Amino acid sequence: MNVVVWNENVHEKMDPRVTELYPGGIHGYVASFLADQDVKVSTATLDMPQCGLPQEVLEETDVLIWWGHMAHDQVPDEVVERVHKRVLEGMGLVVLHSGHFSKIFTKLMGTPCNLKWRDDARERVWTVKPNHPIAEGIPESFSLPCEEMYGEPFGIPEPQEVVFIGWFNGGEVFRSGCTWVRGNGKVFYFQPGHETNPSFQNEYVQRIIRNAVKWCSPIHRKIEIICPHVEPSEPC
Amino acid sequence: MNVVVWNENVHEKMDPRVTELYPGGIHGYVASFLADQDVKVSTATLDMPQCGLPQEVLEETDVLIWWGHMAHDQVPDEVVERVHKRVLEGMGLVVLHSGHFSKIFTKLMGTPCNLKWRDDARERVWTVKPNHPIAEGIPESFSLPCEEMYGEPFGIPEPQEVVFIGWFNGGEVFRSGCTWVRGNGKVFYFQPGHETNPSFQNEYVQRIIRNAVKWCSPIHRKIEIICPHVEPSEPC
Amino acid sequence: MNVVVWNENVHEKMDPRVTELYPGGIHGYVASFLADQDVKVSTATLDMPQCGLPQEVLEETDVLIWWGHMAHDQVPDEVVERVHKRVLEGMGLVVLHSGHFSKIFTKLMGTPCNLKWRDDARERVWTVKPNHPIAEGIPESFSLPCEEMYGEPFGIPEPQEVVFIGWFNGGEVFRSGCTWVRGNGKVFYFQPGHETNPSFQNEYVQRIIRNAVKWCSPIHRKIEIICPHVEPSEPC
Amino acid sequence: MNVVVWNENVHEKMDPRVTELYPGGIHGYVASFLADQDVKVSTATLDMPQCGLPQEVLEETDVLIWWGHMAHDQVPDEVVERVHKRVLEGMGLVVLHSGHFSKIFTKLMGTPCNLKWRDDARERVWTVKPNHPIAEGIPESFSLPCEEMYGEPFGIPEPQEVVFIGWFNGGEVFRSGCTWVRGNGKVFYFQPGHETNPSFQNEYVQRIIRNAVKWCSPIHRKIEIICPHVEPSEPC
Repeated sequence: MNVVVWNENVHEKMDPRVTELYPGGIHGYVASFLADQDVKVSTATLDMPQCGLPQEVLEETDVLIWWGHMAHDQVPDEVVERVHKRVLEGMGLVVLHSGHFSKIFTKLMGTPCNLKWRDDARERVWTVKPNHPIAEGIPESFSLPCEEMYGEPFGIPEPQEVVFIGWFNGGEVFRSGCTWVRGNGKVFYFQPGHETNPSFQNEYVQRIIRNAVKWCSPIHRKIEIICPHVEPSEPC
Repeated sequence: MNVVVWNENVHEKMDPRVTELYPGGIHGYVASFLADQDVKVSTATLDMPQCGLPQEVLEETDVLIWWGHMAHDQVPDEVVERVHKRVLEGMGLVVLHSGHFSKIFTKLMGTPCNLKWRDDARERVWTVKPNHPIAEGIPESFSLPCEEMYGEPFGIPEPQEVVFIGWFNGGEVFRSGCTWVRGNGKVFYFQPGHETNPSFQNEYVQRIIRNAVKWCSPIHRKIEIICPHVEPSEPC
Repeated sequence: MNVVVWNENVHEKMDPRVTELYPGGIHGYVASFLADQDVKVSTATLDMPQCGLPQEVLEETDVLIWWGHMAHDQVPDEVVERVHKRVLEGMGLVVLHSGHFSKIFTKLMGTPCNLKWRDDARERVWTVKPNHPIAEGIPESFSLPCEEMYGEPFGIPEPQEVVFIGWFNGGEVFRSGCTWVRGNGKVFYFQPGHETNPSFQNEYVQRIIRNAVKWCSPIHRKIEIICPHVEPSEPC
Repeated sequence: MNVVVWNENVHEKMDPRVTELYPGGIHGYVASFLADQDVKVSTATLDMPQCGLPQEVLEETDVLIWWGHMAHDQVPDEVVERVHKRVLEGMGLVVLHSGHFSKIFTKLMGTPCNLKWRDDARERVWTVKPNHPIAEGIPESFSLPCEEMYGEPFGIPEPQEVVFIGWFNGGEVFRSGCTWVRGNGKVFYFQPGHETNPSFQNEYVQRIIRNAVKWCSPIHRKIEIICPHVEPSEPC
């Protein structure tokens, strides 16, 4: 399986705390805990030609992971169209944290994906669907001592499944782990992952992302999206 | 519209705090804030013949509200069967608080509806779907200073819509307001309403229950549930 | 309630069969069976300034009905953005037949909404959810002697509810009536309504569209879509 | 993985056509096309002690396949309770054809699961969700020359996913392949499989059942269903 971890890689150039927490940038760090014998991982960033996502790369990608925040608008529409088409064909997509406002996620959802936020909260992530493949190995709840609060209402379409709900010490709740299907592609959104907080170092966060990659890997690598005129299937 | 508020009415006979909070019992109190010119409300309790729910009453009932806790097992199966059939025919059902373990609710869900619990928590109820008819007039969130904590995982089938999520000061979350459809009947579960806490006095809790009654009132009052042998609809 | 029936009004100018079937155009004809004492109906077409959908019109619109086919691409993106925003705020949207490929519908769905098609089929529409408000007064099934076949797979996200499924004499099936929620707005897609077939004259088709208008009328007329930084709701 | 194919095995004793089509009975025949190196298959029937499903067998069962028709009522409630509990714990359940009226299926659904029917129809099964694991290797549609027609409305709760829709030559449609989750258990219902029709010989029907077994195999083999009193997770 081929996985690409995409990161805008902008905070990393401006704020030393990010690369202290995540050597190699968020993309490099996430890639480091995904690789195993069945998963071939590479990374791509905004500053690469075509954002590191030319057609030939996407065609070989089974699952794309997306982290962005400050620079959503700098991702060219043609790249977004290409990624969108690949999700519809079957490529899995895992959207992390501030990726809720990325062009690709809002395009797939059809809604603004807005939410409330506040820095420096204490979060407890609850496993609402313990039987879901993405929850395999995850305890009933786990704690993130410092994470950005994202609060309801979250401007998403009703998820197919809410796998995790987040509790925050300031009184808020959030559907922190949600799934959807779009075309042949499976989509998972996961809320933890602020650039200056250590959540990606958390063993359960890592496990959830590994599980999500496995869950949304495609059956079909490529399917034509057409609207054909057809002859009758049955005599009439 | 005819609404029946059913209550096991057992705590009321044992614990004076309940009737102090809710004169006339939980059934009487809930009935008192439901009645208006379009809604005719009556009450029924466990100690009445046939639990106050004989066939002729159910046939005229548009929406049934259910509160039970200690005495779920004392509701005869034949009463449960009758209520179940009426829900399938189209009668709306609003299940309150500890009704999560009632025979009728678990029968409709097909699951145990188990959860975590703890008394004397502080709850904040979040409106996750502000556009839902049950959320009409409800603010983004409201606070219940003392309510029984119900915590995830909640052993229910994925709801059609999660309208409210509860936050608790002890670190828990709960899908506090959920909808399902069973046959022609709409079902709403709402978590607040512990017998020794004043939640039913809260204006938003009252409004939610009033909205829910309106939302789950039936289009059809009675439909036969049959499995007919049929002639072809089209020539073949 | 204010309803606007939007039609691209292009076939009407090219093919006399359309205006023979539907005097005043599809927009005028659909408007004619929607008006009653509670519903104020107007029409809008592609050839009007801003497609007849300037901000001041949309702000007063509770439900928008959309028919388009040949000229989807001629609807300016800024009009689509404006309609999209209004749906998220709460405006209901009823998309008819070939509107499946309209910019507004595919934007709300996040998917291509592709399908199979063939002219001059015989269709039987089955009511899968007889309790749904949109199915009120509709029989178990009804026949459309000549309608364009739309066939599965239909490239939509899993609907919240499939209310109608279409059977076609050439061996195809289609999820002919589906609902979704996007932001505060309710969306209903309905498959019958080819420009040269008399389906809009069918009493059940008319009833379904009337029911759908009622079903997707908003609770909220306008809601801000924001992503606010917030203070804690609870002491922390 | 351990799979048990359960069959009431009643038609087999009365109608020689069944065992001509399916040597060894429906249970034996279905078992024969499921076994492979990763799947250990056994069978169980109504006439065995405890229906062949004592606790020690169920505890080791990952996926149970269910075929029944005439003798639903002869399955003791205690066996049904035991199977139900195992599904909630995580055991997968594949319900075939007339199993729609089995005690275990209606108990899990919470609804009567009624439908229309007629013998000797021609069916075409359409793949509505080509990306679903259960549809892997299945064409866009396939034909069953003689199968019992099951027609809508089908008295089930809205499925999590409708994977297949059936077309029948007499004008009917049916949600022929549907999924639900109940507790930790995944449930798949599949409509083809009448005892005197050769559908289980069809390569695609066989593939669908094999896929379904794989799809609904559990992550968790056993989970306690409890309703615990808990201490706060966070200081309060």
